[in-house]
Amino acid sequence: MKREELYSGKAKTIYKTDDEKKFIAQFRDSLTAFDGKKKSEASKKGYYNAQISRKLFEMLEEEGIKTHYIEMVSDTDMLVDAVEIVAIEVIPRNIAAGSITRKYPIEEGTVFAKPVIVLDYKSDEYGDPMLNEDIAVAMGIATYEEIAQIREMALRINDILVKYLDEKGFLLPDFKLEFGRKGGEIVVADEISCDTCRLWDKSTGQSMDKDIFRFDKGDLSKAYEEVARRIVPEIFE
Amino acid sequence: MKREELYSGKAKTIYKTDDEKKFIAQFRDSLTAFDGKKKSEASKKGYYNAQISRKLFEMLEEEGIKTHYIEMVSDTDMLVDAVEIVAIEVIPRNIAAGSITRKYPIEEGTVFAKPVIVLDYKSDEYGDPMLNEDIAVAMGIATYEEIAQIREMALRINDILVKYLDEKGFLLPDFKLEFGRKGGEIVVADEISCDTCRLWDKSTGQSMDKDIFRFDKGDLSKAYEEVARRIVPEIFE
Ligand SMILES: Nc1ncnc2c1ncn2[C@@H]1O[C@H](COP(=O)(O)OP(=O)(O)O)[C@@H](O)[C@H]1O
Ligand SMILES: Nc1ncnc2c1ncn2[C@@H]1O[C@H](COP(=O)(O)OP(=O)(O)O)[C@@H](O)[C@H]1O
Ligand SMILES: [Mg+2]
Ligand SMILES: [Mg+2]
Repeated sequence: MKREELYSGKAKTIYKTDDEKKFIAQFRDSLTAFDGKKKSEASKKGYYNAQISRKLFEMLEEEGIKTHYIEMVSDTDMLVDAVEIVAIEVIPRNIAAGSITRKYPIEEGTVFAKPVIVLDYKSDEYGDPMLNEDIAVAMGIATYEEIAQIREMALRINDILVKYLDEKGFLLPDFKLEFGRKGGEIVVADEISCDTCRLWDKSTGQSMDKDIFRFDKGDLSKAYEEVARRIVPEIFE
Repeated sequence: MKREELYSGKAKTIYKTDDEKKFIAQFRDSLTAFDGKKKSEASKKGYYNAQISRKLFEMLEEEGIKTHYIEMVSDTDMLVDAVEIVAIEVIPRNIAAGSITRKYPIEEGTVFAKPVIVLDYKSDEYGDPMLNEDIAVAMGIATYEEIAQIREMALRINDILVKYLDEKGFLLPDFKLEFGRKGGEIVVADEISCDTCRLWDKSTGQSMDKDIFRFDKGDLSKAYEEVARRIVPEIFE
């Protein structure tokens, strides 16, 4: 089923399949941070992230939100709709953490009264600079209508994930979404995993996400396993 | 009339007056660029900028747009309403130039199909990082309603200035506006001058603004004088 490699990103490799409308996204164990300046590997990371993403995509689909997810074809390989990725990283923020606390006088841990949505231009070359609607449209990245729809979807997804993860014992300070065009439709693409979410344990406040790698906060594989145990317990049976 | 100095910025000094609802903004000859790293003086710069600002504020008032401008009390000193400055630099862009061409793959000279509005957090300490509505509101800088009104005013002002400056032989690639709260109202504050506008001569394409200072492009005082000759010819009579 898996055919030639289409492109290999920082965490996943995308393969063509026999069906030109479908790709396979393989979740790898490689880790990068700070624009690729810091690199490593973590055992089973690809597996846990693939399974967590699978579960969260299934949940979104149940809530009527369209995603690129079709099915798992192995532990780490996800069959997805081939989409045209919209070059915007959409970041819903619920609690201040990371870059927003460095760029602005906003203290880490500040709980936002309503979610703050940040749009970044997805471009390694330009260092993912922040966008606004006018700039994105002027660059031809998306139309105003598409961005409005992406915002609305991001807010709904944020609501769903915050509630769900709360039940699993996590706070969700922020996370990153990518969207793609499938025919005339906008669907959620890429992944929703420990690499793309800030997840803080509700009782200890500890990071259970890629910040462990960014800031050398401990054993990443162990933390990701614990997240997997809470979100996809079935894979440990 | 002028009483104690309230604060001295990079280009103007603000003085209290006998009336606590009024300030005097004195336009100085000092020039700074690149977050104050580059500094200089230019003869008569304060005078020309004060007179150009005066003229543009008068014009906006005639078009029904409220500004802080009251009257000139000397060649360089402008009596203005004391306002609470909204800490947002509002930048309408018509033609790509400057930072937008460095941050994104947008070529200098690209004419935008519609004006691009950029909002920056006015903060020397943080280096004027770009904002969006959600971040500005989360920081308590302004309400969504205020920002919507500021946007609308900025677009109208842009339309008026583009047309007016075209008649005077200038292109207006971009410019910076500041707004303030006066009672319950939002009014245009600060200045609209060669320091805060990119002005390109329509026939030669040459910069007639602070870029001459930023990038050592020639005689700033001469260029500002030429702008003043076209916009406020009466001061040369
Ligand atoms: N359904 C899809 N169709 C096409 N491309 C996709 C799809 N889902 C994700 N991608 C893209 O696959 C690439 C590889 O993923 P990743 O390793 O995370 O890359 P990156 O280094 O850009 O973060 C990314 O550019 C991502 O946008
Ligand atoms: N009507 C006004 N009331 C109060 N402050 C004002 C008014 N107009 C402008 N200001 C502020 O006066 C300060 C001095 O101007 P300037 O020298 O341009 O300062 P800056 O170094 O911040 O650019 C600025 O902070 C500006 O926001
Ligand atoms: Mg990625
Ligand atoms: Mg200023």
